[in-house]
Amino acid sequence: MRFLKGHGTENDFVLLPDPDGSLDLTPELVRALCDRRAGLGADGVLRVVPTSKVPEAAGQDATWFMDYRNADGSIAEMCGNGVRVFARYLVTEGLAAEGELRVGTRGGVKGVVVNHEDVTVDLGEAVVGEPIVIDGLPATFVDMGNPHAVVHVADVDALGELHPQRKDLNVEYVEDVEPGHLKMRVHERGVGETRSCGTGACAAVVATVLRLGHPRGSAYTVDVPGGRLVVTWWEDGHVTLTGPAVLVAEGVWIG
Amino acid sequence: MRFLKGHGTENDFVLLPDPDGSLDLTPELVRALCDRRAGLGADGVLRVVPTSKVPEAAGQDATWFMDYRNADGSIAEMCGNGVRVFARYLVTEGLAAEGELRVGTRGGVKGVVVNHEDVTVDLGEAVVGEPIVIDGLPATFVDMGNPHAVVHVADVDALGELHPQRKDLNVEYVEDVEPGHLKMRVHERGVGETRSCGTGACAAVVATVLRLGHPRGSAYTVDVPGGRLVVTWWEDGHVTLTGPAVLVAEGVWIG
Repeated sequence: MRFLKGHGTENDFVLLPDPDGSLDLTPELVRALCDRRAGLGADGVLRVVPTSKVPEAAGQDATWFMDYRNADGSIAEMCGNGVRVFARYLVTEGLAAEGELRVGTRGGVKGVVVNHEDVTVDLGEAVVGEPIVIDGLPATFVDMGNPHAVVHVADVDALGELHPQRKDLNVEYVEDVEPGHLKMRVHERGVGETRSCGTGACAAVVATVLRLGHPRGSAYTVDVPGGRLVVTWWEDGHVTLTGPAVLVAEGVWIG
Repeated sequence: MRFLKGHGTENDFVLLPDPDGSLDLTPELVRALCDRRAGLGADGVLRVVPTSKVPEAAGQDATWFMDYRNADGSIAEMCGNGVRVFARYLVTEGLAAEGELRVGTRGGVKGVVVNHEDVTVDLGEAVVGEPIVIDGLPATFVDMGNPHAVVHVADVDALGELHPQRKDLNVEYVEDVEPGHLKMRVHERGVGETRSCGTGACAAVVATVLRLGHPRGSAYTVDVPGGRLVVTWWEDGHVTLTGPAVLVAEGVWIG
């Protein structure tokens, strides 16, 4: 079984090319691949399959479908950094040209732009909910297809280990560095603190634009432990995520 | 650059075949390969090079030399689980036949026996030192080429996080399961708690034989978090380590 390994701001993935749609991707296989000692190690698996081979993608106007699985073997709708690495693979492999392309996902078709340096994905509309409270602090609820709570703090490095009381949400702790520039740490539900979270960076920018009363349409730099992302909340409500997406290895799984 | 990934009781390694002895294995490259998010991820790198190409191996009666590097890029003399995975690679690749073979290391030539199921390595003589104290508990000092302190406890699972005060030693916490059967957790110097430590399992058995006044020459089963090892302290003072050693992937590094 052929694989590739790649990451976007250190959110890392095993990619499995499946041009025939014949791969039996069991939860056990996903867990074996993602095991960081006994396997290859990754946050998730991206099966690369023609949309025409995926019944649940019926009607999607995209050539390739991203079948995303979490490291624990469960199925997930979308992954902001995952779809960027997926698109990098399509271009590197010659399955798509640089520039604009469309990727099918369980969260619908996503528009992507692949350049030599970075990959941008349109993650769709942000939906802002009622204000909530996280660990006694006011937080902004933002739905990016998955639920986020964004907390503004003075210094993310001073927080120590992240243990938010709400375990059913992704929680972003955001610090203002300078206008248009944030620093963020994230606690992902079911995972713990991670090096990066693409939809979390988007939620952080949406919450910050609202908090500061800034106009939409400006690009924000978001520094996460695994690198640097750029996020824009556009006038039409869509949020785009830009950043590096690289492949580091390819090979054959013999485990 | 070609690589393989393998592990012995979840002590994992990136192997780099270097038949010409031409690979420039810098500390930066080792760290990039071993990075568990941005790289392949491993506890260390095993460069597979002909002994004749390694000046520091002059006079060693072995065809292949294990150039072992820790994940932080530093050079190490030996690694008990590493040499077992190294030998598995030699046999799988057809560079050596199953059965007895010899591997050159910075800790001298090691005798290895490779079978279909497992790999045994002779790690040489154990040297027992003066009794010491670890965290207020009596401990046995055992030099296996690297320094170990073995502490006998009633229940290793009840210990919680391991934070031994001595950071300059590898510290093994050992529980008696039944005669000839131990359970062990290990805190490796410079690393923290790990899933397995081959020389640590050897030190644990040496200390247990001395503590219980058992005769030498009996095989002990040692359960570690990453699997099961078998250790024997022989009459001549040598210690052998047996356990699984598997390769799970091979490929090309493009990072």
